[in-house]
Amino acid sequence: MMIGKFYGIGVGPGDPELITIKAVKVLEKIDIVICPKSKKESKSVALSIAEDYLNKKAEILKLEFPMTYDEEKLNVTWERNSKIILDLLEKGKNIAFLTIGDPMVYSTYMYLLPFLKKKDINIETIPGITSFCASANKVNIPLASQEETLSIIPLRKNISEFEKVVDDYDNLVVMKPSTEHKRLAEILESRNLEDKFVLVSKCGTNEENISYDIDDLKNKKVPYLSTLIIKKGGI
Amino acid sequence: MMIGKFYGIGVGPGDPELITIKAVKVLEKIDIVICPKSKKESKSVALSIAEDYLNKKAEILKLEFPMTYDEEKLNVTWERNSKIILDLLEKGKNIAFLTIGDPMVYSTYMYLLPFLKKKDINIETIPGITSFCASANKVNIPLASQEETLSIIPLRKNISEFEKVVDDYDNLVVMKPSTEHKRLAEILESRNLEDKFVLVSKCGTNEENISYDIDDLKNKKVPYLSTLIIKKGGI
Repeated sequence: MMIGKFYGIGVGPGDPELITIKAVKVLEKIDIVICPKSKKESKSVALSIAEDYLNKKAEILKLEFPMTYDEEKLNVTWERNSKIILDLLEKGKNIAFLTIGDPMVYSTYMYLLPFLKKKDINIETIPGITSFCASANKVNIPLASQEETLSIIPLRKNISEFEKVVDDYDNLVVMKPSTEHKRLAEILESRNLEDKFVLVSKCGTNEENISYDIDDLKNKKVPYLSTLIIKKGGI
Repeated sequence: MMIGKFYGIGVGPGDPELITIKAVKVLEKIDIVICPKSKKESKSVALSIAEDYLNKKAEILKLEFPMTYDEEKLNVTWERNSKIILDLLEKGKNIAFLTIGDPMVYSTYMYLLPFLKKKDINIETIPGITSFCASANKVNIPLASQEETLSIIPLRKNISEFEKVVDDYDNLVVMKPSTEHKRLAEILESRNLEDKFVLVSKCGTNEENISYDIDDLKNKKVPYLSTLIIKKGGI
């Protein structure tokens, strides 16, 4: 029996129409669709974006992954998950692994790749629309033009990293601003950037919210799926 | 008569299948498709990506824009072009303006926006797959993971800007490395990064080329539509 092919698929930021033709063509024929999910989630966000494109025979397999940055824990889980995938590929199944946004930008898919690359597997990764592109397009504001530089910074524990580089760049995208939103607002105010940002939450979904107001950033709850765009030259 | 709607459409990096469902739905019904082109180009690259999705009645309008960073020249051209667009919108035509990659990342579309925003026009911009996402996905290499930072730098005249920030970032994307490819190779060598990059040219087209070899970057011609990804942690 032929060994199956493994696809990583970026399903985009939330709007089901922001998926590519290439991704849809794969989903229309795929045998098994893998959705990564954390223990907390009741439903996979990636699956809800892609489900209208799935063929009816596709089997859906939810693989749990820990919400942690502990590399050892991640490695144990992904080694186990990669074995499940390898077994299915050896049975001749074609498999698509769904990721929100783009598979190569802060996704869980990337942790899986090293385990699969060790084996001689046919891997094709299909890019997706990133949250920061979707957000900028939604509000009709350039992310970067001419010779401007653009910095993409994930905010988890590294708000200090953000503070270090905020002054060096023309434009910045802050990924996952939810946990440090108050501190972020203070840093923007300290640099007179309080009216030079836009915060886009749950872009392209029914719960989408767009704010240019520093008080929202400081005092309201910022959802997990949010993106902050800062433009020094003005919004 | 109802005034028409204006769409900015990202058609992705080159592979016609890397366009979104949303973009295709617009192109299937659009009245007029605008392709920006320079004097040098015989054919619009954006049009060749999108043409299979156009409805047969769509009129194709090529608007010339100068290949210059002289803002005054650009402004004169775009003011003239925006008037052409406004006239057509007022005649009730729906118009799609095509851009390679994403409309908000170093596109010509962005220069047009301020002129259209002055008028009360219904503008919808549809994001596209960027060259750097397409390139990273093609070679199965993460652009950024965990708490890593990512810097996007356009290389035109600002190779000095690149040299200033190259040491601060975990991962860097160099857009348009063609003109300064020799100097770029020297900077990489001076930091022992000669085996920590990948150069992807004309991603997703028949002329696609992928190189991990510093000698290629230094000595071979680098096509205009190329992207260089540097990963300090290793490729």
